[in-house]
Amino acid sequence: MRDVAVIGTGMTPFGELWETPLRSLWAEAAIKAIDNAGIDSVDLITIGCMSSGLFTGQEHLASLLADELGMAGVPAARVESACASGGLAVRAGFAEVASGLSDTVLVTGVEKMTDVDGADATYALGTAADSEWEGFHGVTFPGLYAMLARVHMERFGTTREQLAHVAVKNHANGLLNPHAQYHLKVTIDDVLNATMVADPLRLLDCSPVTDGAAAVVLTTVERARAIAGDRPIVVIRGSGMATDTVTLANRADLCELNAVKLAGERAYAMAGKRPADIHVVEVHDCFSIAEICCIEALGFYERGQGGPATASGCTSLGGAMPVNTSGGLKSKGHPVGATGVAQAIEIFRQLRGEGGERQVKDAHVGLAQNMGGSGASSTVHVFERV
Amino acid sequence: MRDVAVIGTGMTPFGELWETPLRSLWAEAAIKAIDNAGIDSVDLITIGCMSSGLFTGQEHLASLLADELGMAGVPAARVESACASGGLAVRAGFAEVASGLSDTVLVTGVEKMTDVDGADATYALGTAADSEWEGFHGVTFPGLYAMLARVHMERFGTTREQLAHVAVKNHANGLLNPHAQYHLKVTIDDVLNATMVADPLRLLDCSPVTDGAAAVVLTTVERARAIAGDRPIVVIRGSGMATDTVTLANRADLCELNAVKLAGERAYAMAGKRPADIHVVEVHDCFSIAEICCIEALGFYERGQGGPATASGCTSLGGAMPVNTSGGLKSKGHPVGATGVAQAIEIFRQLRGEGGERQVKDAHVGLAQNMGGSGASSTVHVFERV
Repeated sequence: MRDVAVIGTGMTPFGELWETPLRSLWAEAAIKAIDNAGIDSVDLITIGCMSSGLFTGQEHLASLLADELGMAGVPAARVESACASGGLAVRAGFAEVASGLSDTVLVTGVEKMTDVDGADATYALGTAADSEWEGFHGVTFPGLYAMLARVHMERFGTTREQLAHVAVKNHANGLLNPHAQYHLKVTIDDVLNATMVADPLRLLDCSPVTDGAAAVVLTTVERARAIAGDRPIVVIRGSGMATDTVTLANRADLCELNAVKLAGERAYAMAGKRPADIHVVEVHDCFSIAEICCIEALGFYERGQGGPATASGCTSLGGAMPVNTSGGLKSKGHPVGATGVAQAIEIFRQLRGEGGERQVKDAHVGLAQNMGGSGASSTVHVFERV
Repeated sequence: MRDVAVIGTGMTPFGELWETPLRSLWAEAAIKAIDNAGIDSVDLITIGCMSSGLFTGQEHLASLLADELGMAGVPAARVESACASGGLAVRAGFAEVASGLSDTVLVTGVEKMTDVDGADATYALGTAADSEWEGFHGVTFPGLYAMLARVHMERFGTTREQLAHVAVKNHANGLLNPHAQYHLKVTIDDVLNATMVADPLRLLDCSPVTDGAAAVVLTTVERARAIAGDRPIVVIRGSGMATDTVTLANRADLCELNAVKLAGERAYAMAGKRPADIHVVEVHDCFSIAEICCIEALGFYERGQGGPATASGCTSLGGAMPVNTSGGLKSKGHPVGATGVAQAIEIFRQLRGEGGERQVKDAHVGLAQNMGGSGASSTVHVFERV
């Protein structure tokens, strides 16, 4: 298997981008990544997108977007695993380069969510749950994660305040990220007093509806070294994927994210790393409770310790294990198909020392974890600066 | 790059399967393929599906279906390139095994199209065209392919009767395929007198709306040999993909399928084969004119010779170059996400000598070509018995 490196990144600002259609958002990120990589052609394009069909009435994105970039002819593939679609696009690009089928791949993610109204967006997102066993009965994702939060609180004593710390931390990080949807200082009291969405989750526990696109360029380590010159290069050391039951009710343990755990174990094994080797992490904080479950499933904290660790500042910038330095889905925004690619961008920039005000000191190994539904699919990638 | 073999296949009957939900259709094909392969586990699952979101209100199929098979935990990926989604699933599985990321992959395709009414199915299929530049203006796929047919007729003198020969041949082949949607002898007069859909295309020039699923198991050549024992094994020698503009109007040549041509050239180059080396072919005959354009784009006939070659019987069973021995999309049916995988199944069975009444004598190299939209994306795979 060939080693694979990241050589360039690009993304749009994340937000409610009413004026910009999907194809233009995507092209902006793609062109920035190609320019940042310093290349002029790619062998293949992967596109993570959850539901352009339901959000914008357009499938067949791969060809549409290759053409938008002036690259009609180039092979292109759309992949989907709900909100893990971006992570899946990274995996698909990684497999192409690792196999030798392609030398250089443009890996992208995009979602245009504000072309439909709130109810239709909720319906579209709800198709990531089991439509027959969950959706038809009226439960939406805030409801599913609220149940997960309740179990975590009952089982481990996780508190409402600990959940709030996730939002406070991620909004503090997002203040330092010019691409973030919200530049907004949030306090514990703000979270505790925000509008109730699904008890115990309030508005500030929830990631928003977002438009945006993100792109990275993957290539062989040899080509990456030739392009990077004196700059360090970033290699993908491990790629792990896993699934779980989509229906939350079918899980043996309601608040253990088994797909995240399995994907993490697979990525660690491939990378030859342990959780203690990781310096900076992006996890899928679609809801505050999700971040706590993810940092536990990835082995950074024992089960039940995710809440206390967050409240104590361990996962903050400057803490022992900075999590979601980008602002996470909570503050940076969550254009669902783009999120997994944007996470890879944050880790790449951190490892190259390009993190700006949110740089983690001496970070040279990082991890990005993306998931779909209530954790029914997950991808984990481990990156290392070499 | 590791060599990759096909070791088992399974499919549902294709048709209007009102009683069977998507997940059950898929599981039937998957279990048959696993059983046929003689294995008991896989490392990864790929799923080609065009639009379960619009057809059934369910995205996130990868996790849903892995769980349906009792395989929650196993990595799974859905891929989409409109009606080329099945071919893309083959490519994605091929990349996984070729790279060494996975040893054994279950490659599947599925579409459940009859859960919505005809207008909604037409809308869903229309999202494979450019929604802003084609769909919003009212054109549907029969209309797009009708324009392509008109240009081909004007340019090359292709006749209405030659188009009819495609349907007559494919229905004759479908009579020999127990999995086909239609077992129906069709004459030239039947086609010429069928209901007009979009001039010059009539009802019997068009592939139907279909439910169905198909699956193949891919693995390393070493494992395939160990499992096959004395039976011949079938290796994927070449995998080619390409895109074209989605909007028909943007193409320099309205009746040349450039994505098919490029994907074919890439697959031939990788396989070290020429068109003359191929013994049996499945192409994407979503409309009669599509088959004619595809056999030209793949280099089997000069441009403009596809119609005469078909009318002369060259592409019939027993002809010099049998095309769509399965019955093609026309007679076998076209569950859009499953089609590309079902094509691979037909080629596999032909190369193993398991073609039954429709066996092509001495076939040991075959080709499967799948495409999306009006040819805006295409995959081509070359298979060889060794």
